[in-house]
Amino acid sequence: MSRALPQTEPASDLPPRVTIYEVGPRDGLQNESSSVPTPVKAEFVRRLVAAGLETVETTSFVSPRWVPQLADAAELLADLDEVGRGPLRPVLVPNERGLDRALEAGVGAVAIFGSATETFAQKNLGRSRAESVQMFAPVVRRAQEAGLWVRAYVSMCFGDPWEGPVPVDQVADACAELMDLGCDQLSVGDTIGTGTTGHVEALLAALDRRGVGVDRIGVHFHDTYGQALANTLTALRAGVTVVDASTGGLGGCPYAKSATGNLATEDLVWMLDGAGVESGVDLDALVETSAWMAQQLGKASPSRVVKALSGG
Amino acid sequence: MSRALPQTEPASDLPPRVTIYEVGPRDGLQNESSSVPTPVKAEFVRRLVAAGLETVETTSFVSPRWVPQLADAAELLADLDEVGRGPLRPVLVPNERGLDRALEAGVGAVAIFGSATETFAQKNLGRSRAESVQMFAPVVRRAQEAGLWVRAYVSMCFGDPWEGPVPVDQVADACAELMDLGCDQLSVGDTIGTGTTGHVEALLAALDRRGVGVDRIGVHFHDTYGQALANTLTALRAGVTVVDASTGGLGGCPYAKSATGNLATEDLVWMLDGAGVESGVDLDALVETSAWMAQQLGKASPSRVVKALSGG
Repeated sequence: MSRALPQTEPASDLPPRVTIYEVGPRDGLQNESSSVPTPVKAEFVRRLVAAGLETVETTSFVSPRWVPQLADAAELLADLDEVGRGPLRPVLVPNERGLDRALEAGVGAVAIFGSATETFAQKNLGRSRAESVQMFAPVVRRAQEAGLWVRAYVSMCFGDPWEGPVPVDQVADACAELMDLGCDQLSVGDTIGTGTTGHVEALLAALDRRGVGVDRIGVHFHDTYGQALANTLTALRAGVTVVDASTGGLGGCPYAKSATGNLATEDLVWMLDGAGVESGVDLDALVETSAWMAQQLGKASPSRVVKALSGG
Repeated sequence: MSRALPQTEPASDLPPRVTIYEVGPRDGLQNESSSVPTPVKAEFVRRLVAAGLETVETTSFVSPRWVPQLADAAELLADLDEVGRGPLRPVLVPNERGLDRALEAGVGAVAIFGSATETFAQKNLGRSRAESVQMFAPVVRRAQEAGLWVRAYVSMCFGDPWEGPVPVDQVADACAELMDLGCDQLSVGDTIGTGTTGHVEALLAALDRRGVGVDRIGVHFHDTYGQALANTLTALRAGVTVVDASTGGLGGCPYAKSATGNLATEDLVWMLDGAGVESGVDLDALVETSAWMAQQLGKASPSRVVKALSGG
């Protein structure tokens, strides 16, 4: 037996090409308990780019007090040099101070992160939702003036661990307020992984009513309840063409007793390959990268594809 | 924080009600290496029925030489008594001898199992595909004469580990030959888990061309490559209303280095609950059952929902 392959059969209603927005080095490693040396992170990013991932979010300029795992952001970008630059290598910035550090490091793209709920805005950003929009306004303006590409993440778009259900129109309003600052792309985040297929349709419709069309939307699903790929499929059928994923499924969920984090890039690529949707990614190179990273972290990848193809 | 719930948002193109065909006690336990005592199996079936699963495949009358895990089929059915009888408690039968034993045990439904490929027919049934249809003909006839409900499983419908890709028209022919014997329901099996969304659409269309409509089809996906729930969603959108699943995701894949087996019933119920699709299943009771069974087996459930809600 050679290695298994999906049999290519085009699917109805899928776009011909999907852009994978790889979040493993940032969202993945930020939620891993192991400390990863900077040169390993740099090698990780280089391998991801070599495997065909065009867009790779490399790190975060959030205060090291909050995210010690990514305290080496400046060192990492210095190590990566040209590989870490340009509009396809965004970094996370929480505020103007983070933007300053990112600009100093010579990045070409940044991502801000807001909340769909008041409770999470208070817990994650230490201020109300309205105040957080005010905080982000000068970040987006200055980033644009510097010629950077800007993405807006919004968390808790499909439910909040403290507030419970979140009405889709409230989520759409919160997203639109950030997009109205002039961001280039929105990433709607199912931070706790509770979202399901109809919920995805409802939120995309609500966003469209608020003037944020699928051409500016990326989807960011966590696999906490096993829904990430089915939700992604629903989003693609609705016209979304940007999907966030983390190689090897790196990154746990801080809000559930689960080791399962982001949608695994490999499981997504398997589906896209099978459906004949172009992503530019070499699945074998990606699985090899995940197996290598799993060794570095000392824990098995939760990706089904990685498990099946590499035994871990 | 109380336990997370999916937020109910109806999905387009989904049926109002889905029948879950629970295969945990048979397909799940048959592929587990641990030996499970008969009273534990009986308790497992009782708990599943109590959790709202109407259809539960209880065991198999395949020769104990081939499936020693289920050698206690007659004892289990004696223990289950009325709970194990009727058209909603099928058992697997490989041939007339198996049917004899099943009839003796007083079952009300049986399932035969064929192959979409020559190689797997030889390996699993010890004869050609055509010969296997001849073998099953008297089994189906006699089962019908005895008033039993009859299901036909077909394996390797989305790829074969020895032959590789399998054309959908070949699969449809193999399925139709068994259905033409007079079976009530077909279960199309992605035995190695390689299938993807477009492939599901293509096979359902091929089956329709061969006269096997979605009203007689159940889908049976393995999560080896993480595709099971996305494929199920595609099948439901195409009009299928019967989905095979295994509580806790019990059962490995014998054809890949992966511990991941059948679609986990919990992950399916989460999606259906979220989309407002009725299944009759109480998710909390199911998760509790999986956590209990995981203890019996001494290994964690691969179900995402079980992991998130029970920490194992």
